Amino acid sequence: MRRTQAVPDLVARAREGDPAAVARLITLVEDASPLLREVMAALGGTAGRAHVLGITGAPGVGKSTSTSALVAGMRRAGRRVGVLAIDPSSPFSGGALLGDRVRMGDHALDREVFIRSMGARGHLGGLAWSTPHAVRVLDAAGCDVVIVETVGVGQSEVEVAGLADTTLVLLAPGMGDGIQAAKAGILEIGDVYAVNKSDREGADRTRRELRTMLGMGERRDGAWRPPVLQTVASTGEGIDELLEELDRHAAWLAESGELTRRRTLRARGEVEAVAVASLQERWGSAGTGPGLDALAERVSRGDLDPYAAADELLDGLSGRD
Amino acid sequence: MRRTQAVPDLVARAREGDPAAVARLITLVEDASPLLREVMAALGGTAGRAHVLGITGAPGVGKSTSTSALVAGMRRAGRRVGVLAIDPSSPFSGGALLGDRVRMGDHALDREVFIRSMGARGHLGGLAWSTPHAVRVLDAAGCDVVIVETVGVGQSEVEVAGLADTTLVLLAPGMGDGIQAAKAGILEIGDVYAVNKSDREGADRTRRELRTMLGMGERRDGAWRPPVLQTVASTGEGIDELLEELDRHAAWLAESGELTRRRTLRARGEVEAVAVASLQERWGSAGTGPGLDALAERVSRGDLDPYAAADELLDGLSGRD
Repeated sequence: MRRTQAVPDLVARAREGDPAAVARLITLVEDASPLLREVMAALGGTAGRAHVLGITGAPGVGKSTSTSALVAGMRRAGRRVGVLAIDPSSPFSGGALLGDRVRMGDHALDREVFIRSMGARGHLGGLAWSTPHAVRVLDAAGCDVVIVETVGVGQSEVEVAGLADTTLVLLAPGMGDGIQAAKAGILEIGDVYAVNKSDREGADRTRRELRTMLGMGERRDGAWRPPVLQTVASTGEGIDELLEELDRHAAWLAESGELTRRRTLRARGEVEAVAVASLQERWGSAGTGPGLDALAERVSRGDLDPYAAADELLDGLSGRD
Repeated sequence: MRRTQAVPDLVARAREGDPAAVARLITLVEDASPLLREVMAALGGTAGRAHVLGITGAPGVGKSTSTSALVAGMRRAGRRVGVLAIDPSSPFSGGALLGDRVRMGDHALDREVFIRSMGARGHLGGLAWSTPHAVRVLDAAGCDVVIVETVGVGQSEVEVAGLADTTLVLLAPGMGDGIQAAKAGILEIGDVYAVNKSDREGADRTRRELRTMLGMGERRDGAWRPPVLQTVASTGEGIDELLEELDRHAAWLAESGELTRRRTLRARGEVEAVAVASLQERWGSAGTGPGLDALAERVSRGDLDPYAAADELLDGLSGRD
């Protein structure tokens, strides 16, 4: 009984911006709690106010320092800000090993800033449903901006781009030449680029190379041309210009209709991920039809090919076993 | 008619090690061809001979040079080797922008080495089914070892670990201190670690830090303790020792029963990914029940929460709409 009462109460408190309630709801997301269904139903009608800013880049480019500097600027403008820092899972760190959070300490006592490190562990599909869920919570809590900061290059970047309204890609001089950048697939995902640590040697070259490579892609009329800025996040240099460009992109999104398109796409991914997670739960347990584990064993022994196994799995699903 | 005859012929030629047939089959995998079902059925009973070696690490650590040096060593030992280099998607490069492949040129004319760059583009779940499929092809073509080289840190690493029998994690001095390594989640996935470019300053420190951090995790008796080696792939220094450790891990896998466990897990992921891909195809097209796009629109407008939408999607699946 206590449980069913807890959710409406938590959601009501989160809506009032109570940090403890917000934290508790995000923990439910992280734990993939069975209560999530109820939480999301209660939050349902509120999502979509906050602007979601994705920040990504390779380790060492200064993502956390940049996030911190951007948060400071947004706070000066009177905005309420949520920060979700997505760390890949690690049995050692549990996503909580020093590093980023230490540097974010400046904002730790500010009630208008919610900061949360989230592991991406254990969820197949990684960010696919847990991050949009957490964004919903922060949105309901009245955040004007939700920053989703992710470590890494590679697959996860593309996922971030799918989650955010605006994606900011950070680079640093000497962190890799243009070809490395292209390999890492960053050229297609950024709405705004910043070469951070641009007081270091090679910043101009990195900026120039990036501009050249970005110029290689064809763009339609009226399409957004991603600007490439230079920043020194540790001193705040270039942060105001960066904030301006981010605002300019937000305005373009709204005018062009791209915002609606991106948010529908994000909702699509979220719904699909929730559906897949629900199926995986059924497949993991002994239900109708042959279990996934039994099928996997037969496939690994070479007795069954993966398509025939998938057919059996799906047949079980629709009760045709 | 020609199509249905083409697959058995291609598979037969691939089994004989014909590089053109192998290349064509991997292209079918990359293109998510409808013929894949038939290809995999024809390959079905053969998989499991090749040892799958995953190589990962941040951009700039020398993955391609290391792969090339390892391939050279394996070739000296008379092994047939397949290399799958997984590049994140990029509309500019299409995964084919200079870089790695240039350096792999040493082996380009060797008929006992298959080298293939694969994009991970377009497939939800990334590596989840396309890489195991490509491994099946190379396995059937008689490869003793299949190397899966992936760019990046973050989510994709964890996926690589799920794909490989043995995972080799590469680092380089000064590429980031221990905390960065922990953040990138590399500590849990490596079976063997190599600090490459170890003629550079800081190699000993990187090795020492890594050993300390690896030592922090608890390990059961009889568990594998990941060694940390030092290499200079460009000169071949340390490569023989690295090959020895990789062999030692392969032997341990077989003895401990871990090989069977990992391969069953890999098959599980592959079957699940094939099943999910099949569902996504149905969801994408107008079929039974409300389409995913329509549901996503309602969710993004705030008219429906993601769980209710997922329920409707799954109800449509089992014909209960």
